[in-house]
Amino acid sequence: MLLTDKRCIHHASKLDPGRVEALLTEVPGYKLDAARAKISKDYKFADFYETIAFVNALAYIANQEDHHPDLVVSYNKCGVTFSTHDAGGLTENDFICAARVDALVRT
Amino acid sequence: MLLTDKRCIHHASKLDPGRVEALLTEVPGYKLDAARAKISKDYKFADFYETIAFVNALAYIANQEDHHPDLVVSYNKCGVTFSTHDAGGLTENDFICAARVDALVRT
Repeated sequence: MLLTDKRCIHHASKLDPGRVEALLTEVPGYKLDAARAKISKDYKFADFYETIAFVNALAYIANQEDHHPDLVVSYNKCGVTFSTHDAGGLTENDFICAARVDALVRT
Repeated sequence: MLLTDKRCIHHASKLDPGRVEALLTEVPGYKLDAARAKISKDYKFADFYETIAFVNALAYIANQEDHHPDLVVSYNKCGVTFSTHDAGGLTENDFICAARVDALVRT
């Protein structure tokens, strides 16, 4: 089953390192932080209008999944970071949301 | 004339330190960075819906003034940073936008 076809669940379990590596291959461009507790990707856009439109599409998904990333927004870029605070690291929810957000920009 | 009644201009000049200090008193909560080239304020909200609504209201102002801040967005917070890259520091445009954004949340 594709990540984009899954939905986030409450109280998802922290993933073991092997599963993190496996899921990482399904979200191209996302990178693990040094602590292996977060995944991030930088998205680039033509201008601020496009960047904010992306933020809103992402917010729709985040609200639908009740799983919210951290964002670093500038004129033509949006850095997106997923992590599951409750689990103290990465859960499948992070990869599901990353995949759904990534599908927004895929051409 | 209040900052909120002014509009940004193209090619605004970099402000001298005295003028920066004076204008800073007109945007409560905004702080200078160590290099005195940026002003920032953290805004807090009830939830992600409120945070994203603020981002959109801010984006409307930024597009209207054609002067765009950097944002750090999380579930219930938005950090806003203004600086004028072209001028290599702070211009009146930064304080005008900061004041207009701050007016959005003033109760």
